Amino acid sequence: MFVLGIDPGLSRCGYACIESSGRQVRAVALGVLTTPPSDPLPTRLAELRHELAGLIAELRPHVVAVEHVFFQVNVRTAMSVGQASGLALAEAAAAGCEVVQYTPNQVKETVTGWGGAGKEQVQRMVQARLGLAAPPKPADAADAAALALCHLAFAPLRARLRAAT
Amino acid sequence: MFVLGIDPGLSRCGYACIESSGRQVRAVALGVLTTPPSDPLPTRLAELRHELAGLIAELRPHVVAVEHVFFQVNVRTAMSVGQASGLALAEAAAAGCEVVQYTPNQVKETVTGWGGAGKEQVQRMVQARLGLAAPPKPADAADAAALALCHLAFAPLRARLRAAT
Repeated sequence: MFVLGIDPGLSRCGYACIESSGRQVRAVALGVLTTPPSDPLPTRLAELRHELAGLIAELRPHVVAVEHVFFQVNVRTAMSVGQASGLALAEAAAAGCEVVQYTPNQVKETVTGWGGAGKEQVQRMVQARLGLAAPPKPADAADAAALALCHLAFAPLRARLRAAT
Repeated sequence: MFVLGIDPGLSRCGYACIESSGRQVRAVALGVLTTPPSDPLPTRLAELRHELAGLIAELRPHVVAVEHVFFQVNVRTAMSVGQASGLALAEAAAAGCEVVQYTPNQVKETVTGWGGAGKEQVQRMVQARLGLAAPPKPADAADAAALALCHLAFAPLRARLRAAT
């Protein structure tokens, strides 16, 4: 199964595609999509949408896991993060993927064992779980990988719930 | 010039396409796009994106005016409005339209003369300006028409500013 994690953002949108086979996991792709802050907002959103569509078409994930965005202190950032998440959710659904959302706390608790874990702890756990030579950077890419790993941890439970209903 | 106003929303997304010729204006299209609240969020966003793309392809507006969304009291609604606005801005930019944003207060002040005007006042002014038999309903469609009219009022100033820089 291929799971694509997306940590939505306009300046930096993290992504990580994880392949799982039994208990084995490996990173197929990991990185960030960026749009130039000097471009107008609508242009940046169109660019991000184009990049996301290209990523989904290339990687053909079965599941796309997008971070469930909440309002943060910085209202300006929260709006663009919300807009970016809308694009990611729409692209993934339009491509026929199963789309799931997890909160940052769900992700951190599942991957590190503690909902209050810091960025570095998440990076180190992602590095260990994926057998990477170094912690994935920037943090947005690690967060996207953590989202995909979180879904893989929840997937058996989701499958059982579906079978039971 | 064709101006498409979009009042973004997930349950009801208002739209209005206004044609202006000199001081004459007329409504070419006016209505709301809806998505069923019973559908999952990603599906609804994909549906809305598809509808918006169809609308822009059909009406071929020169300018798309999207309401500048701010955070409201209802955090749940604000996020879906933000996500819907992201889709509208991206679709319009990808289609090569000029994309502009106005705040609700700018729109109300320009169209009714008062930034604190109510929904009904906006509906009545839109009715009068477009020579409609009845106030446009629902309010989302009237708000979208007011956005387009607001842009038409600002357009000469914007053109002069562009020429001067």
